[in-house]
Amino acid sequence: MKKLTIIKIGGNVIDDERTLSQFLSSFAKIGGNKILVHGGGKIATQLSSQLGFETKMVDGRRITDAETLKVATMVYAGWINKSITAALNSKNCESIGLCGADLLLIPSEKRKKTNVDYGFVGEVLESKINTKFLELILTNNIVPVVAPITSDYTGQLLNTNADTIASALAVALSTLYEVKLIYSFEKDGVLNGEKVIGVINPSVYDLLKKEKIITDGMIPKLDNAFLSIRKGVKEVVITNSSQILNQNAGTRITN
Amino acid sequence: MKKLTIIKIGGNVIDDERTLSQFLSSFAKIGGNKILVHGGGKIATQLSSQLGFETKMVDGRRITDAETLKVATMVYAGWINKSITAALNSKNCESIGLCGADLLLIPSEKRKKTNVDYGFVGEVLESKINTKFLELILTNNIVPVVAPITSDYTGQLLNTNADTIASALAVALSTLYEVKLIYSFEKDGVLNGEKVIGVINPSVYDLLKKEKIITDGMIPKLDNAFLSIRKGVKEVVITNSSQILNQNAGTRITN
Repeated sequence: MKKLTIIKIGGNVIDDERTLSQFLSSFAKIGGNKILVHGGGKIATQLSSQLGFETKMVDGRRITDAETLKVATMVYAGWINKSITAALNSKNCESIGLCGADLLLIPSEKRKKTNVDYGFVGEVLESKINTKFLELILTNNIVPVVAPITSDYTGQLLNTNADTIASALAVALSTLYEVKLIYSFEKDGVLNGEKVIGVINPSVYDLLKKEKIITDGMIPKLDNAFLSIRKGVKEVVITNSSQILNQNAGTRITN
Repeated sequence: MKKLTIIKIGGNVIDDERTLSQFLSSFAKIGGNKILVHGGGKIATQLSSQLGFETKMVDGRRITDAETLKVATMVYAGWINKSITAALNSKNCESIGLCGADLLLIPSEKRKKTNVDYGFVGEVLESKINTKFLELILTNNIVPVVAPITSDYTGQLLNTNADTIASALAVALSTLYEVKLIYSFEKDGVLNGEKVIGVINPSVYDLLKKEKIITDGMIPKLDNAFLSIRKGVKEVVITNSSQILNQNAGTRITN
């Protein structure tokens, strides 16, 4: 099976021009087939506030009303996506900027209302991912750069979690490739105090949660990572965006 | 030679939701390979003014400073491009939203300063167009939807005239396809008073210009059209966006 590296970069990396540029230089050097999934960062929130829109949050999640969706699409699928793609092309890394709506690459559906209506937020239909097109462009050594905007079958654009997109792509493509999924961000990995935890397996994970060493935002990331591995992804690594070429850096998630 | 239809829609069509939706339904019905190139419309100007940026114009051309470029990229390559692509996909027209920066599809260079510095404006390098990738996706019956943003070889994004992009794509692809280029907008064609002029050849064109029947914004459009035909494009038509399925509507440009 051919190898495929899928890397997700987080918002803090995107917000810092120099860190982003260094990351992209490293990314361009990764051998073989690869996909870059990027998040949003603060630019969308800043733009919304410049436009006088209030960002509504419930339980740490942004509520995506029609205006927020427009801003997210403009910033994620427009400015960030095309800036990254143009930069990669200038580094001899032949790239194409896409979002989940292109070719219905990542079909999704609007999150159902429960007690909270999150608005125009997409839930990825993992089994419907357009692996055929991804395989076509990967076979031609083209690198997809994927923005966290998707659409449903009616053409409604939906704001979608970038971590989820990265893991959904990893799972869907693990039928065709040996997939390594890297979550890269501003930290060195999953930390215990200041020390990077080298490997986390399910029993270590339970312990770390029990001892409150792993909390908050890291839990959904790790839950996602374990789920991806159970669904066929070969390897998941959580590491610093400056260390993606270092095979020994970061935290490795294993079964 | 296989046939290819390239359609450019203008800003006024994009600004009117109902007209745009009707256009997209017609576009989805066009048989064979096709490409859609879209302009910007008023949304970018509106967004700039909401953000408190002043739109600077010289000789009817917008000056693209860094902020204007960011807004143009967000609006054209983000919101408009992905909204159109998602809508086409929902109409069973398998589409991919791109700009000229993707895969250096349409390499360009920053317009040289003369007496006016137009800022981040791209001049298309027609001979460098990535026809290989376009052929790859057209062969797979995928429809490219192209936003008028390009980049140079250093990764600098550039705001680029959509009419020029449409004709440059038409010329570059005429080595591989029999290309029909349609400029569609809110008018019924090139008008003499209220009557559509059915055919314009070079000598008719000279006469119409001399009699001031053709003026202003239509001249660069027609110059572009004649140039495209001299460079190998089979047919150029200027017509109403609601009439693209009507073979007899609009104005035909011939040699």
